[in-house]
Amino acid sequence: MKYKLGINDCNIGENVKIIEPVNLYGCSIGDHCFIGPFVEIQKNAMINEKTRIQSHSFVCEGVTIGIHCFIGHGTMFTNDLFKTPTIENWKMRKTNIGNNVRIGSNSTILPVNIGDNVIIGAGSVVTKDVPANYVVAGNPAKILRKISDE
Amino acid sequence: MKYKLGINDCNIGENVKIIEPVNLYGCSIGDHCFIGPFVEIQKNAMINEKTRIQSHSFVCEGVTIGIHCFIGHGTMFTNDLFKTPTIENWKMRKTNIGNNVRIGSNSTILPVNIGDNVIIGAGSVVTKDVPANYVVAGNPAKILRKISDE
Amino acid sequence: MKYKLGINDCNIGENVKIIEPVNLYGCSIGDHCFIGPFVEIQKNAMINEKTRIQSHSFVCEGVTIGIHCFIGHGTMFTNDLFKTPTIENWKMRKTNIGNNVRIGSNSTILPVNIGDNVIIGAGSVVTKDVPANYVVAGNPAKILRKISDE
Repeated sequence: MKYKLGINDCNIGENVKIIEPVNLYGCSIGDHCFIGPFVEIQKNAMINEKTRIQSHSFVCEGVTIGIHCFIGHGTMFTNDLFKTPTIENWKMRKTNIGNNVRIGSNSTILPVNIGDNVIIGAGSVVTKDVPANYVVAGNPAKILRKISDE
Repeated sequence: MKYKLGINDCNIGENVKIIEPVNLYGCSIGDHCFIGPFVEIQKNAMINEKTRIQSHSFVCEGVTIGIHCFIGHGTMFTNDLFKTPTIENWKMRKTNIGNNVRIGSNSTILPVNIGDNVIIGAGSVVTKDVPANYVVAGNPAKILRKISDE
Repeated sequence: MKYKLGINDCNIGENVKIIEPVNLYGCSIGDHCFIGPFVEIQKNAMINEKTRIQSHSFVCEGVTIGIHCFIGHGTMFTNDLFKTPTIENWKMRKTNIGNNVRIGSNSTILPVNIGDNVIIGAGSVVTKDVPANYVVAGNPAKILRKISDE
């Protein structure tokens, strides 16, 4: 009952760089993306173009990540809030990450909506939506400041 | 001095699904368990039946996990409180996880006892025992509520 | 565009034990070190002798780790504070870890200086320098106590 990981049934764009071993199945990866080693991306996850998924990250079903994002090392996405009585009847929750979002390493992202240009500090646990152009950090993540246009 | 990881000297039950690469040695895995990719489980760890150890997790010596648990992605167990002067003379501490426990991804579990049916929020750092039927979250993890029978 | 990870252009000392798969490139590893599985160490990182880098850890460019340290499982170092407008023009920040430092599993280390003998609790997010002989923990990590000489 041993299975080998790999890249299966994925829709992968042009000029994508992938460092194996990775476990990618049924997901979409846009043009010019980078996928580091020890990454798992599940079915129906969508990574848009020019985005970097750094090593040790996990992107689950229900997650959409925008264009030109940086997903730091060891970032864990989630899609289950454990609201059901058992693990068998879990309900999938969705996560949307905007464009130009930077997520610091070792962050944990609950099922939320993150606006464009957001910066999430390393080691954060993001439990609520974050509007565009804000910097958040902490566990739970709180707004630190708005990104000015200077 | 390079070594290849693998599955060595383990006691593995019936109908266990393992996604390689994993590093399992000297541990026990019960029937109907799932072990995701990039998982390490050390000697003398015991995983009981129907439990899922998701990708990127580390289960150390001294950890016993009950029946029908969900151990989220990137969960790190520990068995050393750094109470000794050096890393050579460390003292192993034990962790016991009950049955039907769900641990959110990227959580860190210090050497503690976790009761049955406990839910641990994603990104938590659990530093104290948690009695059965409670939900905890945060760093350090605190009780959020008791699970009712409804 | 798939690449295989491995050990490339590294300066590796005597009696080093490495559990593959790892992704090591352009780094220096001192004598008698241990490197666990699923570890990535980038170019120009320096690990001094007798140090253990446990499984699932990421050590980036700009990080120097002293002698006889314990870097727990899933520890993520960082070298970018996201202070620049885009990911392309990022500026590298350095991290220095002293000797005999112990870092608990799942910790996140921002670009800081950590003194000798420091102990960092598991799951910490270290955002500031820590002087020698202190114990810190939390997110953000705060000083818990000074280590006495007893």
